[in-house]
Amino acid sequence: MSEERARLLSHRRIYEGKVLALDVEEVEEPGGVRAQREVVRHRGSVAVLAVDDQGRVVLVRQYRHPVEQRVWELPAGRLDAGEEPEQAACRELEEEVGLKPQSLEKIGFFYTTPGFCDEAMHLFRTSDFTPVPPRPQEDERLEIRWFTSQQIRGMMDTGDIREGKTLVALLLEERRRREGSR
Amino acid sequence: MSEERARLLSHRRIYEGKVLALDVEEVEEPGGVRAQREVVRHRGSVAVLAVDDQGRVVLVRQYRHPVEQRVWELPAGRLDAGEEPEQAACRELEEEVGLKPQSLEKIGFFYTTPGFCDEAMHLFRTSDFTPVPPRPQEDERLEIRWFTSQQIRGMMDTGDIREGKTLVALLLEERRRREGSR
Repeated sequence: MSEERARLLSHRRIYEGKVLALDVEEVEEPGGVRAQREVVRHRGSVAVLAVDDQGRVVLVRQYRHPVEQRVWELPAGRLDAGEEPEQAACRELEEEVGLKPQSLEKIGFFYTTPGFCDEAMHLFRTSDFTPVPPRPQEDERLEIRWFTSQQIRGMMDTGDIREGKTLVALLLEERRRREGSR
Repeated sequence: MSEERARLLSHRRIYEGKVLALDVEEVEEPGGVRAQREVVRHRGSVAVLAVDDQGRVVLVRQYRHPVEQRVWELPAGRLDAGEEPEQAACRELEEEVGLKPQSLEKIGFFYTTPGFCDEAMHLFRTSDFTPVPPRPQEDERLEIRWFTSQQIRGMMDTGDIREGKTLVALLLEERRRREGSR
């Protein structure tokens, strides 16, 4: 599908940092809307649902400064420059939880918050992995834990799982289980 | 649960705009991690899953400049200053699709991308609404359409639905339908 794009009338790079950049742009969008848009630029992310032979999934919990709390999430991270999503998914799963996937299945793709940010999220699943030593980043302190599907459902119901990519992946896994294609 | 928070070592407001602000902060996080964090500040958002008496749901499609394409999404928007999530949900459903909810059920809460942004997403559902004239914002051009659950499933499978909050809400609705509590 060829998609009509906005006409860029002006562009200002406000900030360029380690994780993100911020642009303010004036655009004329398809349909004729003329507007100033604040756009967070992000390299894109991957997340991996690792499922063991008992059907348990691994989550990591870390302190997320923007929301001032520790959050349970899928092992995940940003793409490195020039890195393919699959590579990044393998790397993150190894680094964060010490699992080396032998194969990965793409289970989803979405934009996390496309109103003001271009971050793309690539979701993968693996049930085929071997243990390796984890290598957490310097600025990461991760708690790693395996959860049964019952525990996951409970944590979704109570709101103890409260992060976008993690909810999408776990709800897809529920559906998969229901449809019997494990 | 009392949650330990980061100690703020320095704070710099880089930008303050209409939709978001950007801070760069040095923090010492619980566990002793000392890091510079880039934080996008956002007022928080609401989205509404409206389901009619045939089980169809309404989505809106609009051009999203950050991702340079039109995206199918739940009716949604940012909280106004001092506004409660329920109020915002009612307002957005009226403004964007011309439906006035008589009642709303909270179906979810999550952070869209807590690694670098504090945006909270409040998800609501309604099956009880009356038509009113829509009042789109000046900078919005919305296509409004009702979809059956089969159509929705097809669009999820093909990737034509590719936005975080929308996937979470539609997967929750699938589960609800399956569990027979419509």
